[in-house]
Amino acid sequence: MRAVTFQEPGRVEVSEVAAPRLSGPDEAIVKVEACAVCGSDLHIYHGRVKIEPGFTIGHEFVGAVTEVGAGVTRVAVGDRVLGCFQTACGTCRQCLRGDYHRCERSRTFGHGAAMGDLQGSQAEQVLVPNADITLRRVPEGMDAATAIFAGDVMGTGYHAIASSGMRPGDTVAVLGLGPVGLCAVQAARAAGAAQVLAVDSVPERLTMAQSFGATALDLDGVDVKKAVRAATGGRGVDVAVDAVGDPRALELAISLARAAGEVVALGVYAERCELHMGLLWIKGLTMHTGLANVIAHVDPVLDMLSAGALDPSRLITHRMTLDDAPEAYALYDRREALKILLEP
Amino acid sequence: MRAVTFQEPGRVEVSEVAAPRLSGPDEAIVKVEACAVCGSDLHIYHGRVKIEPGFTIGHEFVGAVTEVGAGVTRVAVGDRVLGCFQTACGTCRQCLRGDYHRCERSRTFGHGAAMGDLQGSQAEQVLVPNADITLRRVPEGMDAATAIFAGDVMGTGYHAIASSGMRPGDTVAVLGLGPVGLCAVQAARAAGAAQVLAVDSVPERLTMAQSFGATALDLDGVDVKKAVRAATGGRGVDVAVDAVGDPRALELAISLARAAGEVVALGVYAERCELHMGLLWIKGLTMHTGLANVIAHVDPVLDMLSAGALDPSRLITHRMTLDDAPEAYALYDRREALKILLEP
Amino acid sequence: MRAVTFQEPGRVEVSEVAAPRLSGPDEAIVKVEACAVCGSDLHIYHGRVKIEPGFTIGHEFVGAVTEVGAGVTRVAVGDRVLGCFQTACGTCRQCLRGDYHRCERSRTFGHGAAMGDLQGSQAEQVLVPNADITLRRVPEGMDAATAIFAGDVMGTGYHAIASSGMRPGDTVAVLGLGPVGLCAVQAARAAGAAQVLAVDSVPERLTMAQSFGATALDLDGVDVKKAVRAATGGRGVDVAVDAVGDPRALELAISLARAAGEVVALGVYAERCELHMGLLWIKGLTMHTGLANVIAHVDPVLDMLSAGALDPSRLITHRMTLDDAPEAYALYDRREALKILLEP
Amino acid sequence: MRAVTFQEPGRVEVSEVAAPRLSGPDEAIVKVEACAVCGSDLHIYHGRVKIEPGFTIGHEFVGAVTEVGAGVTRVAVGDRVLGCFQTACGTCRQCLRGDYHRCERSRTFGHGAAMGDLQGSQAEQVLVPNADITLRRVPEGMDAATAIFAGDVMGTGYHAIASSGMRPGDTVAVLGLGPVGLCAVQAARAAGAAQVLAVDSVPERLTMAQSFGATALDLDGVDVKKAVRAATGGRGVDVAVDAVGDPRALELAISLARAAGEVVALGVYAERCELHMGLLWIKGLTMHTGLANVIAHVDPVLDMLSAGALDPSRLITHRMTLDDAPEAYALYDRREALKILLEP
Repeated sequence: MRAVTFQEPGRVEVSEVAAPRLSGPDEAIVKVEACAVCGSDLHIYHGRVKIEPGFTIGHEFVGAVTEVGAGVTRVAVGDRVLGCFQTACGTCRQCLRGDYHRCERSRTFGHGAAMGDLQGSQAEQVLVPNADITLRRVPEGMDAATAIFAGDVMGTGYHAIASSGMRPGDTVAVLGLGPVGLCAVQAARAAGAAQVLAVDSVPERLTMAQSFGATALDLDGVDVKKAVRAATGGRGVDVAVDAVGDPRALELAISLARAAGEVVALGVYAERCELHMGLLWIKGLTMHTGLANVIAHVDPVLDMLSAGALDPSRLITHRMTLDDAPEAYALYDRREALKILLEP
Repeated sequence: MRAVTFQEPGRVEVSEVAAPRLSGPDEAIVKVEACAVCGSDLHIYHGRVKIEPGFTIGHEFVGAVTEVGAGVTRVAVGDRVLGCFQTACGTCRQCLRGDYHRCERSRTFGHGAAMGDLQGSQAEQVLVPNADITLRRVPEGMDAATAIFAGDVMGTGYHAIASSGMRPGDTVAVLGLGPVGLCAVQAARAAGAAQVLAVDSVPERLTMAQSFGATALDLDGVDVKKAVRAATGGRGVDVAVDAVGDPRALELAISLARAAGEVVALGVYAERCELHMGLLWIKGLTMHTGLANVIAHVDPVLDMLSAGALDPSRLITHRMTLDDAPEAYALYDRREALKILLEP
Repeated sequence: MRAVTFQEPGRVEVSEVAAPRLSGPDEAIVKVEACAVCGSDLHIYHGRVKIEPGFTIGHEFVGAVTEVGAGVTRVAVGDRVLGCFQTACGTCRQCLRGDYHRCERSRTFGHGAAMGDLQGSQAEQVLVPNADITLRRVPEGMDAATAIFAGDVMGTGYHAIASSGMRPGDTVAVLGLGPVGLCAVQAARAAGAAQVLAVDSVPERLTMAQSFGATALDLDGVDVKKAVRAATGGRGVDVAVDAVGDPRALELAISLARAAGEVVALGVYAERCELHMGLLWIKGLTMHTGLANVIAHVDPVLDMLSAGALDPSRLITHRMTLDDAPEAYALYDRREALKILLEP
Repeated sequence: MRAVTFQEPGRVEVSEVAAPRLSGPDEAIVKVEACAVCGSDLHIYHGRVKIEPGFTIGHEFVGAVTEVGAGVTRVAVGDRVLGCFQTACGTCRQCLRGDYHRCERSRTFGHGAAMGDLQGSQAEQVLVPNADITLRRVPEGMDAATAIFAGDVMGTGYHAIASSGMRPGDTVAVLGLGPVGLCAVQAARAAGAAQVLAVDSVPERLTMAQSFGATALDLDGVDVKKAVRAATGGRGVDVAVDAVGDPRALELAISLARAAGEVVALGVYAERCELHMGLLWIKGLTMHTGLANVIAHVDPVLDMLSAGALDPSRLITHRMTLDDAPEAYALYDRREALKILLEP
């Protein structure tokens, strides 16, 4: 079958690879209807996240179940399903505490041997371990361009809200309006944030955030700290979300949060960095970090998508075929796309 | 000054009473711009809640501060404010745990000697103890018909959500679509409920709930249990709100909730009653009861009203003057009004 | 193999039954080292919980794994394990929210066809579905008389604390000092309750509660309400636990709780009953009900048992053999035993 | 009256200063029975926290109320009381959310003009604003050496537990065994931690931690990471507490925490520092920072002290008179004392 494989930094290709086969009772095989290119795929593309040449990439997908192992009970052959970006066993101590995102045996699609050696979803077919936990049936009538968000990007937006304990009526700042930031904006509004202050410097992204109910703050034209103070009676925001993964964004988040407020480091951090620990401490902030617990959130997120309480499909700026993947990556790398859907 | 006083069951009148005077450093006097008639006023009107003849009733108000005691710091003379329906001291052990609604020294406006001997707000002026906690400034540009909800009815709607721990994406049933039930519908939708199933038998109320984003279930025409099962994949709702205060409503709420779900008894209970404790227990439900913690909710509720995330002003079906109070009570008693605003 | 089977109300016998066989990849077979007789076994014995004649009863056990299915990964042949009283699938929506005790596919050991058709553990061997979730390895050096509590009775005591959100420094009342009540006393003390007020009328049980750090209140000699008021500065307890399952105990629990406090109905309810809903509501209590979420608690409970923070083994008043089961039931029925261990 | 005043870095003296006078209705004056020297007093002594020469220092005290303002209702003249280290208004938005430690109008005793201009408690008398919130009656029969901990050091130990959401059965590491760390050890054990791993390099402190029920890990003789892995089945601790306030301690805390665990930065941070943000993020940790919310904790802490569930009085290694203050500071500075009580 055809699959998008990593070759070397800056180069992916569509290769002919072996079709997946079931090897355990908990597995399923899904024929891919749509997959997508994500910001974290770019880390692989750039060589910052190192994976083996020839490894199939991608971790978002919607498709039809074509085979299931003997122990699979929640999905059946023929079901139209979406996948979460990682698997969880459901039985380890981490899972039993609800920390599915940090399952002791978690495997991430399309991230190489180091993250579970699980081939990715930018392919005609995908092998899905722990299928009962990793897959969900797509609600009747939902298009792939909506459902695909539940397993990764919107699950991450929802995580900003769920992990921080945001209450209806709170004020939230979201720094960085890529797909994750824009999903966090939608999730915050849907969860009852009185105000969402959306910060970026790209006009189209600011406009989109505004159309989702946020107040847009253009880093290039506005004194963001001053604007946030004015919007919050001088107090600062209850929840500040760094959706970038850059120390400058985190520092701004810290400075925007109210005393005893919450900071969510939603963007990826992989290195040491200098942090204004003193400011964090004096303000008495709580900082939430790490990958989103998408498996814990996928059911409520799907219900909100079904109800129209969330609607991220407008984030998809391009629809291409699997064979266009090299072009899709290049385009995404040039920041000309927000979210690209690939159909095999 | 003029004030609406209870006389005997079924009879209130507009009396001339002594104007209030400050007696402690924590107090303020408010010149009333608007007050309202509430379902709990009807309990007094009917004689079920017993208060002294001649006592001024009413516990909802918006107005201007005309005097403050030496210890008042959050509001000042001239401020336009709204009041919560009860006071809290802010320093007892209950308050310090955040249980303001069960403050050891709480006093409720217009409920007679037994509930703190505090004259009501259906008057030209009202004396406000613990003014820093009981009053809030009305946000710039907000009309009285909106602000007045923050201190009682919408605070109670919000409480259904806050006390039950409803999560964005949950499904909520609201039984009884009086003002409190309709506010619970709005609060649930604003807080991200994927579905709100609104149950009543009065067509106008069902229509209004629908306009707030709920699915209306007419008790007279629909098998409610069956409809809820169908809407929830057979599971039942995550949160079931009894906004009536009647054992039949509570029993329906118990039967609609999912296993390990939440039931909120938002309506008033004062007597013993038979309950299907076996069903409650087998399902493993948690039941939340009692007056709403409005003082804890008033700030976020005001922020949501300012942002337009909540908009209960449409519940006001009648605007009358203070002198019309006897007629207003009669009309409300005949269930011809949803919410009546009185302007002195 | 030999197994204790229900025959008719008031009569159990030791029968020869077919040894269990694996039928699915998630299952294990355990050779029983010790099992126990529980209060809920008595409900079956009395015929109140109806099960099929000939069905093997019992739901507590410690033993050695002798066989596992292909999908079992957390326990292996030869492991010494304990079982939880019920199974959970780990993949349904209830499980994924952490509500394992209300798993959509849960099966309870030894409770007949209606509760999952799963033969009991008062036998030489027991078949264990969902073995990765239902079983835990017994910590090195722990005796069966301690470990067996983790899967049922102490898990239930811990649940009183976990479900009510008890905080260190809170005051807790426990009504009814059978094994579950005594475990709740231990759990409350271990979790930092400043005071535990233990209520019963059986002198030995009161003495044991006292030895666990509680203040004993003898229903026959003390005005319990007055004593609780005196012990709490007039406020009432933060958490009141009904460990009986009788409306009179529940009513007492309601009257002992502080305003805005928590009531835990830990004892079993199966029927309608009259409740002082008015008092519950006026006090603004939250009531938690249902079976304990033992699967969620078994890991921390085992760790506390290992550390000696909990030590329920003293509750075992009798050790007998499996063949003595008819006598053990008769003895337990006459309330002459607190907890009986049976060894095959 | 006599008072300990800051003069210049390295020098405090006992000065004659004006006795305090009531200036507002919420204030009280307390005649000091005992005060104490705290680690944060050393920051002033060293000149790192800058305050005005001549300012009275100290923020821990037990004493007798000698005067109260007209609005004070919870304490009366003659009451024996203890004070919290800071005040809170009880009415600002921060207080109404329960964030008393970040009250908008909070003042800290003995920390100079920048932190509220409130003279300290190392004096014969102390003026106490917001007396109803700042003071608590000392329980009958409790000595000053126990009670004084409730208002600062043990309140901070309790905060480590409360802020992190530690559950009974969790494993906790405490790094740094000064008074705050040792109180965190006691609080963790009292709240049901199955294991507390106490890390330091001072033998006496390790021994004391051990006597409080911890496993002592000597930084100089043990590979702490390895020991923690061994003690936790390779998982790491649920909660890691940095009770030092040094980036190396924080980094160790991060490395000891389990995936999706909690880190509490209990020690003071005032500057920027380098942090292994990548490790924090990959592990998906939540980090809690800032001053302890002692006002929220003082009631349960007092109840635990009364019950003997906490007993920090052994931390007091020296009892001296107020006049000995210069010697006390010198001794404390040489790390020859753990906690010094001063009696006027």
